[in-house]
Amino acid sequence: MKDLLVDLKSGNKIKVKVKDVTIGGEEKVFISGPCSVEDLDTMINIAKELKLAGVHMLRGGAFKPRTSPYDFQGLQYEGLKIIKEVSNEVNMPFVTEIMDTRDVEKAIEYVDMIQIGSRNMYNYSLLKEVGKTNKPILLKRGMSATLAEWLYAAEYIMSEGNINVVLCERGIRTFESYTRNTLDLNSVAVVKQKYRLPIIVDPSHGTGLREIVPAMSVAAIAVGADGLMVESHISPDNSVSDARETISTDAMKKIIERINTNKLF
Amino acid sequence: MKDLLVDLKSGNKIKVKVKDVTIGGEEKVFISGPCSVEDLDTMINIAKELKLAGVHMLRGGAFKPRTSPYDFQGLQYEGLKIIKEVSNEVNMPFVTEIMDTRDVEKAIEYVDMIQIGSRNMYNYSLLKEVGKTNKPILLKRGMSATLAEWLYAAEYIMSEGNINVVLCERGIRTFESYTRNTLDLNSVAVVKQKYRLPIIVDPSHGTGLREIVPAMSVAAIAVGADGLMVESHISPDNSVSDARETISTDAMKKIIERINTNKLF
Amino acid sequence: MKDLLVDLKSGNKIKVKVKDVTIGGEEKVFISGPCSVEDLDTMINIAKELKLAGVHMLRGGAFKPRTSPYDFQGLQYEGLKIIKEVSNEVNMPFVTEIMDTRDVEKAIEYVDMIQIGSRNMYNYSLLKEVGKTNKPILLKRGMSATLAEWLYAAEYIMSEGNINVVLCERGIRTFESYTRNTLDLNSVAVVKQKYRLPIIVDPSHGTGLREIVPAMSVAAIAVGADGLMVESHISPDNSVSDARETISTDAMKKIIERINTNKLF
Amino acid sequence: MKDLLVDLKSGNKIKVKVKDVTIGGEEKVFISGPCSVEDLDTMINIAKELKLAGVHMLRGGAFKPRTSPYDFQGLQYEGLKIIKEVSNEVNMPFVTEIMDTRDVEKAIEYVDMIQIGSRNMYNYSLLKEVGKTNKPILLKRGMSATLAEWLYAAEYIMSEGNINVVLCERGIRTFESYTRNTLDLNSVAVVKQKYRLPIIVDPSHGTGLREIVPAMSVAAIAVGADGLMVESHISPDNSVSDARETISTDAMKKIIERINTNKLF
Repeated sequence: MKDLLVDLKSGNKIKVKVKDVTIGGEEKVFISGPCSVEDLDTMINIAKELKLAGVHMLRGGAFKPRTSPYDFQGLQYEGLKIIKEVSNEVNMPFVTEIMDTRDVEKAIEYVDMIQIGSRNMYNYSLLKEVGKTNKPILLKRGMSATLAEWLYAAEYIMSEGNINVVLCERGIRTFESYTRNTLDLNSVAVVKQKYRLPIIVDPSHGTGLREIVPAMSVAAIAVGADGLMVESHISPDNSVSDARETISTDAMKKIIERINTNKLF
Repeated sequence: MKDLLVDLKSGNKIKVKVKDVTIGGEEKVFISGPCSVEDLDTMINIAKELKLAGVHMLRGGAFKPRTSPYDFQGLQYEGLKIIKEVSNEVNMPFVTEIMDTRDVEKAIEYVDMIQIGSRNMYNYSLLKEVGKTNKPILLKRGMSATLAEWLYAAEYIMSEGNINVVLCERGIRTFESYTRNTLDLNSVAVVKQKYRLPIIVDPSHGTGLREIVPAMSVAAIAVGADGLMVESHISPDNSVSDARETISTDAMKKIIERINTNKLF
Repeated sequence: MKDLLVDLKSGNKIKVKVKDVTIGGEEKVFISGPCSVEDLDTMINIAKELKLAGVHMLRGGAFKPRTSPYDFQGLQYEGLKIIKEVSNEVNMPFVTEIMDTRDVEKAIEYVDMIQIGSRNMYNYSLLKEVGKTNKPILLKRGMSATLAEWLYAAEYIMSEGNINVVLCERGIRTFESYTRNTLDLNSVAVVKQKYRLPIIVDPSHGTGLREIVPAMSVAAIAVGADGLMVESHISPDNSVSDARETISTDAMKKIIERINTNKLF
Repeated sequence: MKDLLVDLKSGNKIKVKVKDVTIGGEEKVFISGPCSVEDLDTMINIAKELKLAGVHMLRGGAFKPRTSPYDFQGLQYEGLKIIKEVSNEVNMPFVTEIMDTRDVEKAIEYVDMIQIGSRNMYNYSLLKEVGKTNKPILLKRGMSATLAEWLYAAEYIMSEGNINVVLCERGIRTFESYTRNTLDLNSVAVVKQKYRLPIIVDPSHGTGLREIVPAMSVAAIAVGADGLMVESHISPDNSVSDARETISTDAMKKIIERINTNKLF
């Protein structure tokens, strides 16, 4: 891949600003929140705890890509309104996933950063559509995407004019079924050395096991990731989705404390 | 998976009619054509050859999902018009891929069957959108989709009211790089035994090697597939895309002849 | 891979004789038997049924490679004696797995063909050791071996002087967990076109599901395999190992009948 | 897996002593050296540099498992003698791979720790044979071994009486071909939490790319690994094997310095 926009040969490292949070700069960025936005009160409570814990930015799904059409699909536009309200209330930017080209225009009124989820990394129509906005984009790696395919997906966005792309490694699908996915930190090391884009790591989907999320979070920072996106909840066992991999807001606080002490072990 | 619409417990085997072609009935169905629709004359020439060869239905991409945004993206709406014209001229139904929810409404005026490609198997917005039409849908397996995920993708379409879904096994992504994908005929055997939907096989993407397309075509029929979708061209080496896996129309004719003789070896 | 012994450029197609059975010739060869040799009477009963069914050669494990050291490890040398006795009684050649270089010398007194199992495909000491014998070798593909690695494993045997090698495709390890392995018939098509060695298919390990073993057996023959190796038992549910994938001797008979009618569908 | 010897329920965490080096204790252990033992002088030069760099233990192959039988297979017994001499000269323990049950008895006179390589992780005869010795064993993960299979392989060794087993994560085989393997640090996190055995990481095979070996080394320590095994050479580009992933002894020194400063980033 020569002379692509993602390529370091094409220019300097990119720093992506999401309101007053900068991803790709000196400071490590922590994004956290529940898998799904459930209701306003729960979301505000989680947000306040996370702010105290040192989290910079919130996450939570309004549109949920679920394997079965009969599972909870998210609060949709109702969720976006909650996101906007919580974001204003606690003064933290919010990232949420958009899955349909037709939702992009409306969604950008409500959210600060748009997430392209793993299942839509190859959805080139959607990539182009968000490439036409000026919102920062969080581009998750497809579950079986090669590094090259992932970078080309970023190129789809950037080639439309929006270079505010942050990559997010979230584990790849392998034969190993003990963990939900195999978190591929090799990819983070390569991206940091050879490409222009900031990259963060999602150890929640990357492991599927809340008990190893802290260790993998620290490893991600050690390898050079610009930040983390971690699923958390005040009451993880009561999450409406992904409970097995969701940590408590208190556990999130401990992860940040450990990273902020800058101790390797 | 209990009591899903795809489940045989929910009803009889489904036969999908595309104009006068029935997929899932007694007769094996052959779908063929170039990777991309290139121009009207070439497409008509290919179509005529394929009709003589015994092919029932045409394929060819107007919207092409390409890894790089800088590669040829297909003729788009211009391609749909060519498809319509060729289909009328040779009196054969045509299947083509649609990738954007916003294109569905217009596309159904031009095509007889809508293909959901591998990259969009998890694009639930698109699945729901085509589920609202009454067009037959060809649902390719995602490149790393489990059988369960693939069947749930069909369920997304069917749960919107459109049960005219044909599955298409096209190979899965594995460590083996000698072939482009690993054609998983196990999945065909399972689907034929346990689920309601017809299933066809795409040995072109399932191998990536034109020299083994004939052998794998016959194996697919042996395992019980209801038909084949094979990339072919009058002049395969001049295909604008996927040349390495494209066979000649003459080779397509030989595959059909071999299958029609009903000889195992 | 140029100029290797496995390469067709190095000579004619190889036919491997195991007593009066020829693998790689005109006739399709059927090998069958239980996962493990359990006792003399059971083995003789199975063997007689299989001979009547049209099976040419018996299989059954004396040394069993089991994931856990606490599982049944096979009857070992006691098993080899049973193998010899059964083989003489029913006048059918027998193939069994050897896992230790130190067992090779003794084993060749008892068996007609030595199997190298998937777990030992990279055991180069063992490959060289059996390469020094003049016994025919059945070389199973490693569970995550590329085609190139598998062919090089054959080369390890052949380069020691023993070119009587038969390849056996038995499925590869992928993300798909519905089936035990993903049977890779692409590999069979490539081997038949480009390499000198006969190749058979093991649909039992290649699927792990007895209900699809018949369909995949026929598909293997359709793609050009020189034969099949299928796990069978008089009473499959009572197999001491691999019951889930073991078919009845009666089901084996039906597979052979279907193939012998030479009907594709 | 309940009540296995590897299970923490069966006893305390195991510390493995290799002469005066303890793996699994407070101190992180660094093992390094060339892929293959090439000659006495080169090996001594490398060893002296590595000792100065802070490396505790040497590695280097005498018996090399190579994909092709025509590639350099290692110096074999000549290599073992060099290993012994170097080990004495620089007073550092040495680990080397043994691949044949028949070599175990002789090898233990020459080496301090026996490595079971990835290709032999399922070689149960070999596992049992080294389980009968009292030498510490370094058990690499098979290239497509599940965590459960790997732990059972350790159990094969331990059940013979030798509990001095150190696990070594070295990457797994996935669809991603940019890196040689996908280093699975999830496995390290799980082992440290749930099992008794020490675990180290091999970032050389785990990446195949020397330029990301330092980053992945630090990540491995961050996740809790008890040490590292890294391929290094005075003149990496002149390595007779695995040059692409071999770092310089100087680069090894820098990795150790970075870890010893205990700075996460």
